[in-house]
Amino acid sequence: MARPVGIGLIGFGTIGTGVVKVLARNGDVIAQRLGFPLKLVRISDLDTKTDRGVDLDGIRFDSDTPGLIADPDVDIVIELIGGYDVARKFTLDAIEHGKHVVTANKALLALHGKEIFDAALRKQVDVAFEASVGGGIPILRALREGLAANRIQQIYGILNGTTNFVLTQMESTGEAFDVVLKRAQELGYAETDPTFDVEGIDAAHKLSLLAAMAFGADLSFKQIPTEGIRSLIPLDFEMAEEFGYRIKLLGIAKSHISAEGETIEARVHPTMVPRSSLLASVDGAMNAIVVQGDAVGETFYYGAGAGELPTASAVVGDLMEVAREIRRQGAGRVSPLSYPQAALVRKPLVSLGDLVARCYLRFSALDRPGVLSLITGALGENGIGIESVIQKTRGEPGEAVPVVVLTHAGREAQVRTALEQIDRLPEVRRPTCLIRIEEHV
Amino acid sequence: MARPVGIGLIGFGTIGTGVVKVLARNGDVIAQRLGFPLKLVRISDLDTKTDRGVDLDGIRFDSDTPGLIADPDVDIVIELIGGYDVARKFTLDAIEHGKHVVTANKALLALHGKEIFDAALRKQVDVAFEASVGGGIPILRALREGLAANRIQQIYGILNGTTNFVLTQMESTGEAFDVVLKRAQELGYAETDPTFDVEGIDAAHKLSLLAAMAFGADLSFKQIPTEGIRSLIPLDFEMAEEFGYRIKLLGIAKSHISAEGETIEARVHPTMVPRSSLLASVDGAMNAIVVQGDAVGETFYYGAGAGELPTASAVVGDLMEVAREIRRQGAGRVSPLSYPQAALVRKPLVSLGDLVARCYLRFSALDRPGVLSLITGALGENGIGIESVIQKTRGEPGEAVPVVVLTHAGREAQVRTALEQIDRLPEVRRPTCLIRIEEHV
Repeated sequence: MARPVGIGLIGFGTIGTGVVKVLARNGDVIAQRLGFPLKLVRISDLDTKTDRGVDLDGIRFDSDTPGLIADPDVDIVIELIGGYDVARKFTLDAIEHGKHVVTANKALLALHGKEIFDAALRKQVDVAFEASVGGGIPILRALREGLAANRIQQIYGILNGTTNFVLTQMESTGEAFDVVLKRAQELGYAETDPTFDVEGIDAAHKLSLLAAMAFGADLSFKQIPTEGIRSLIPLDFEMAEEFGYRIKLLGIAKSHISAEGETIEARVHPTMVPRSSLLASVDGAMNAIVVQGDAVGETFYYGAGAGELPTASAVVGDLMEVAREIRRQGAGRVSPLSYPQAALVRKPLVSLGDLVARCYLRFSALDRPGVLSLITGALGENGIGIESVIQKTRGEPGEAVPVVVLTHAGREAQVRTALEQIDRLPEVRRPTCLIRIEEHV
Repeated sequence: MARPVGIGLIGFGTIGTGVVKVLARNGDVIAQRLGFPLKLVRISDLDTKTDRGVDLDGIRFDSDTPGLIADPDVDIVIELIGGYDVARKFTLDAIEHGKHVVTANKALLALHGKEIFDAALRKQVDVAFEASVGGGIPILRALREGLAANRIQQIYGILNGTTNFVLTQMESTGEAFDVVLKRAQELGYAETDPTFDVEGIDAAHKLSLLAAMAFGADLSFKQIPTEGIRSLIPLDFEMAEEFGYRIKLLGIAKSHISAEGETIEARVHPTMVPRSSLLASVDGAMNAIVVQGDAVGETFYYGAGAGELPTASAVVGDLMEVAREIRRQGAGRVSPLSYPQAALVRKPLVSLGDLVARCYLRFSALDRPGVLSLITGALGENGIGIESVIQKTRGEPGEAVPVVVLTHAGREAQVRTALEQIDRLPEVRRPTCLIRIEEHV
């Protein structure tokens, strides 16, 4: 067999350990499929003490990341340290040294993707990042190659395993968000600082990458209206069940083409999806993504969105693709974001106010005569039709009770105007919770 | 923009028309993603008269297939005539002329794949066939590249849209197979000669390709035990519902690794799957495939398994991949069956008799005292435990009624022995129907 392609791994945490395991235990099939072996030559991490429980025989392991990047035996650098600044520096350094890069870091790419992809293009090296969206699901390859003949119309799905785990648990146990989050942290499903996950920021990072690949849209994750799952309470899940829905945190991106041109809709928020939909059956920490193309119609992809080995599966898959290119002395076979960098353009965004959807509204109102009519009146004045109103519990005098309203489809701007009026009422004690309903997912 | 890559299309039926449509309407995004355009230069078909409703301006259209293959302006030949012999000849001729080939023909590849892939390797051209399995679902790319770091443990799914349409209809209408098949033919979901579909042969063709790519197994579709859906009756669907299952025609392939080495299990048959499984929610003519890898765990892929535009989506995606290689003056980037041709080896097959599964058995027995005890006795003698026995209707004297038995997990060889004994009883009027149950799909 030919000389192996040399790999250097920066960041020896959970995913890094998974990569070492996959390369060790599947090295034989990997070499068989490629026609040549991959060889992990170096690992760097600040923590060189902790035993990761893997055999490092023949692999140099120290904290010398610049040395790893400069090492002539390293052809591909795997960046798995996460975060923005240091990851950016090492990634750009590696590219500058003519190394190909494989990363799982969606935050890095969402924030510094343009700079990194431009540098890679200049240096004629590859940057591969299948692991950054959907964990082990080969969704980026599907978009970039399998579905490349399509005009992509919509892409949406469950992009964050932590929040899906929390939502599934809240639904099945009836427990409050804080209780479930704490358990998720204990079980290792949520980070000590869960902000990126529970606020929807991680999903927005991923959605910005997907929207670029789907529509050729240069879309910053900061432009994506993003709502997390903190404000959900157990009652919302009971009501969803009663109305025939389940609650999922979705990232949604759609392309709208009209005589005036193309506009892009992109948003991340808790969403009620019909119980019969494929997305509704995605439980626990799993991810799933729907891609609708003009030729292929609806396609659906499901798998583990995170975790040591599933993420390593994607990282090593990328290593194999890049290693093939190294052997063929090529790079840049497919543009990283499916369109050439220069073809990615800013496209007008649809404002959330222009969204037309049925809504679930949960008000916190005093149980007094006339309050319901004030609420329904404000909705009616703003042209929002009501499908049903449910008040589950009777309150003590002076105590707020939840009132749930399901609206007909209406423009969100009008719903918002009504909610502003309602939330100013003295009888309404907390900001109203709005959950959008997507019928066709 | 650079010179377009030239395409020649052989076979101008439904899928061929879809290819012309996709190339015409999405030519701009295709060229944008590739950096250069694709150009359909020639079409050949025996029928040059029928109006396909597409614009053929600038495309030469005649019945001269050898001329198309020899045409220096044609870089890639699309073979869409179907069938074995003529398709084989044209495909090999095209390869001999140094042309790359894109095909949707699973029958051809299942029967003559080795010859075709060997010829392509010799001539250094690509043969791409994403459209041959799962229609528009990019499942072959997922297996070959996205999941390439995995030892694949299982791959199974709904591989034939026609039979899934018929099964879904039988379930929802309670109508008999013949009635539903006739309607499927009228609606264009089934061919005039439906044998390949309803006997499971088409699914076996596809499964043999998937098993090669998953396990590196040289597996002829003729070696795959295959049962179709003709013997199912409406009662089977009622009973499945009652037991918590749905009936799907599955292609199933598993790799078993033990101290003695690897054995391969492969089979196509109607299967009861739990109603809560993702596969159970795949209705109509849709396809879905589950791939389980040792690192990634379970992944699931869903989409249209057939049809003009979904299949064309896969064909044109392949054109794009091959065209990129032409531009880079390369070919053979990834082995067509994921492993190099020489690495595909015959592996021992697990006999169906060694399968251990719960079974649904439907007997056709006279409603006489003692018959039930003869049936249950024969099962018991052969060590097959019974979970429940249901006799839905009372029969007239001398008339056979269905008796349904759900067994505990048992070895199929023993079930078969019991069924042979039972089917010899004078009280049993028709061969017993056996449907295997897969709990973990």
